[in-house]
Amino acid sequence: MKSIKVGLLGLGTVGAGTFHVLRRNQAEIMRRAGRGIEISMVSVRNLEKAQPIIDGACELVGDSWLVVNNPDIDIVVELIGGTELTKELVLQAIANGKHVVTANKALLAIHGNEIFKAAQDKGVIVAFEAAVAGGIPIIKALREGLTANRIEWIAGIINGTTNFILSEMRDKGLDFATVLKQAQELGYAEADPTFDIEGVDAAHKATIMAAIAFGIPMQFDKAHIEGISKLEAIDINYAEQLGYRIKLLGITKRTAKGIELRVHPTLIPSKRLIANVEGAMNAVLVQGDAVGASLYYGKGAGAEPTASSVIADLVDITRLATADPEHRVPHLAFQPQSINQEVILPMSEITTSYYLRLHVADQAGVLADVTRIMADFAISIDAMLQKEPAVNENQTDIIMLTHQTQEKNVLAAIAKIEQLSSVFGSVTKIRLEELS
Amino acid sequence: MKSIKVGLLGLGTVGAGTFHVLRRNQAEIMRRAGRGIEISMVSVRNLEKAQPIIDGACELVGDSWLVVNNPDIDIVVELIGGTELTKELVLQAIANGKHVVTANKALLAIHGNEIFKAAQDKGVIVAFEAAVAGGIPIIKALREGLTANRIEWIAGIINGTTNFILSEMRDKGLDFATVLKQAQELGYAEADPTFDIEGVDAAHKATIMAAIAFGIPMQFDKAHIEGISKLEAIDINYAEQLGYRIKLLGITKRTAKGIELRVHPTLIPSKRLIANVEGAMNAVLVQGDAVGASLYYGKGAGAEPTASSVIADLVDITRLATADPEHRVPHLAFQPQSINQEVILPMSEITTSYYLRLHVADQAGVLADVTRIMADFAISIDAMLQKEPAVNENQTDIIMLTHQTQEKNVLAAIAKIEQLSSVFGSVTKIRLEELS
Repeated sequence: MKSIKVGLLGLGTVGAGTFHVLRRNQAEIMRRAGRGIEISMVSVRNLEKAQPIIDGACELVGDSWLVVNNPDIDIVVELIGGTELTKELVLQAIANGKHVVTANKALLAIHGNEIFKAAQDKGVIVAFEAAVAGGIPIIKALREGLTANRIEWIAGIINGTTNFILSEMRDKGLDFATVLKQAQELGYAEADPTFDIEGVDAAHKATIMAAIAFGIPMQFDKAHIEGISKLEAIDINYAEQLGYRIKLLGITKRTAKGIELRVHPTLIPSKRLIANVEGAMNAVLVQGDAVGASLYYGKGAGAEPTASSVIADLVDITRLATADPEHRVPHLAFQPQSINQEVILPMSEITTSYYLRLHVADQAGVLADVTRIMADFAISIDAMLQKEPAVNENQTDIIMLTHQTQEKNVLAAIAKIEQLSSVFGSVTKIRLEELS
Repeated sequence: MKSIKVGLLGLGTVGAGTFHVLRRNQAEIMRRAGRGIEISMVSVRNLEKAQPIIDGACELVGDSWLVVNNPDIDIVVELIGGTELTKELVLQAIANGKHVVTANKALLAIHGNEIFKAAQDKGVIVAFEAAVAGGIPIIKALREGLTANRIEWIAGIINGTTNFILSEMRDKGLDFATVLKQAQELGYAEADPTFDIEGVDAAHKATIMAAIAFGIPMQFDKAHIEGISKLEAIDINYAEQLGYRIKLLGITKRTAKGIELRVHPTLIPSKRLIANVEGAMNAVLVQGDAVGASLYYGKGAGAEPTASSVIADLVDITRLATADPEHRVPHLAFQPQSINQEVILPMSEITTSYYLRLHVADQAGVLADVTRIMADFAISIDAMLQKEPAVNENQTDIIMLTHQTQEKNVLAAIAKIEQLSSVFGSVTKIRLEELS
């Protein structure tokens, strides 16, 4: 089957990320989608800058209208940003019968009702997983995964810039202006950071989530928007003393009188998982009547995380356009003919780190014996804890954390260690994963 | 359009939950699915016990074969458990051209390859969102949301019983046997807890996730399985001293030599979000090459959380069987004709709690004045912090946390408070959400 043809509007951070990820994971994605997904045309403002990225892989044009009007293109991916030109381009693509994928939250929060109406009438899809919380598939979770629920409320850390600033203010006790300047130097904040720090970006995303959660039109103009620029370090400090952290939340809630839709700095009890989402990370907490609370956490921005969601939308559309309904999503995610017979490793062959506890005689030379055995099996030690023996005791515990090694090495070392006369009983072994 | 007909095998915890949630949220679910979803036949072992739950709402039978062979039924939901009879029932349902929804991880981990093959050949769907991590839509995230990624590894807390036990052991310093007994009394552990505490249940789920993540067949027999029954309190304690927590993780990882698939107690750095998943909650951490790390957190078991996923599968199938491909999932989750014009409340009408900071003269009577104004506006105070003034200072800060109240009350109270001669400057107001 021939590849589905994609036209890309814009080759900035996310555009280039989409181009790269689609190329790098082409084989893996095709095993899942059941059909190739090919970027065949890209429009950019600056052809010279784009040339080395595209490197002749597809047609490069300076005019976005050439993409949306190209009859060979099945899906248009809009990654230009802004709300006026993009609205015209997206509506034209829809009028031409093309599916659209966009990461543009402002466009949808402001013109979404009109765009979705046009798409509905024309029978095409406008997909926008990347518009909220970057790489986290929260749109899919809300529209599909939680569809059994009456959604009660959603609270999200949905702007990485402000979460980075708040984390730094709390962590280092610095004031807003100082941290903003650092964030700009590190690339976590734009030169003009207004949309982020004043909560506008978060409000676009909250507006989209409210519409999906409650089945209401986009109503960005009704959102209450308050940013973090007036937040003082002293309040972060007092909040901490009272057991709270301050986060910029996008909140939407169903009440008997109507829907709440608001973005503002918010105290959250420190023990909540979402209060511990630090740096530029995003997280969305959803309360449904059946599922209770569930949380979705990950990177909310950046080239490849956002590309991850853009491409997920491309695969969704490809699966719909390709398969009969029953086979839309393959049972095991990959097409049946693409299931590989990969080896599951025997446990002796796996690689991880280890926690080892030895009960030993409190005498000279024990540690030397043990560490020599570890060295013989090329196991390097990351941390060690030797307990003082209790009063009137001449036995004690040694705890070691190892660096990564193979299980068979650890088993062999333990067998040797257990033979030492200064080691009592068996060695306790628990595996350790950094998960980073 | 007539409702899609569902046959339910089993009316235990999850079966009854599915029945109740589907009834309670019928209108909401129909707005999303575009068509009614009706349980028309239920099979149970004990008719008398089931009668009051069903209460005449549908046909109740004692023989599951009557459900899978009923020509009027479109979807069979298998919630009996066990692997042998259910395998036969599911295969028969498939042979009869019915879609199947199941929460049965053991069935899929052991007989999944055969079942999916049969479904593929017959052109029906076998959906199993509820089989891993209860109410968390992790199957959808892996199969669809993260489809752009080369998945590198997955690590999940996917058994609530063991996570509850480990949380209690750490929290209260108790040993395994004591906590297990408590867990059984509280209903967090079965009378025969073997499958949970020995890691078998987690291994079923890890097997399913490995298959989906890497596009490999189910290979439960190759999984390394180690439970928590031999875990000693002393190791939890030592781990904590070293900055780690011990969790039972289901891990699957892609390596150059093959796939790792293992369940065992694991030390995780305490600062990781997943290390802070406590009690019976579940969480799955996925590392993809494009998205980086993302985490999915929620209830992994229980009547309604599991029903949430069972019904999500029912809606998925209904949407496929009903709509043309382009309209499978409505843009705003609800069908276009079902979008409601609900009011977005003006900010003065919203309800939340508040953090207030007042800069005041350090003199008698100030607090009395302030709290009287709060009382006048029916705002009740949850906590208060009054700082000692610095040396040679006669001004200080009062911090108050309020209970829930309406924004307009707080604004009115603040206006009054700011008029007090003993209060300097403006009152700082930050909203507070418990998110519980």
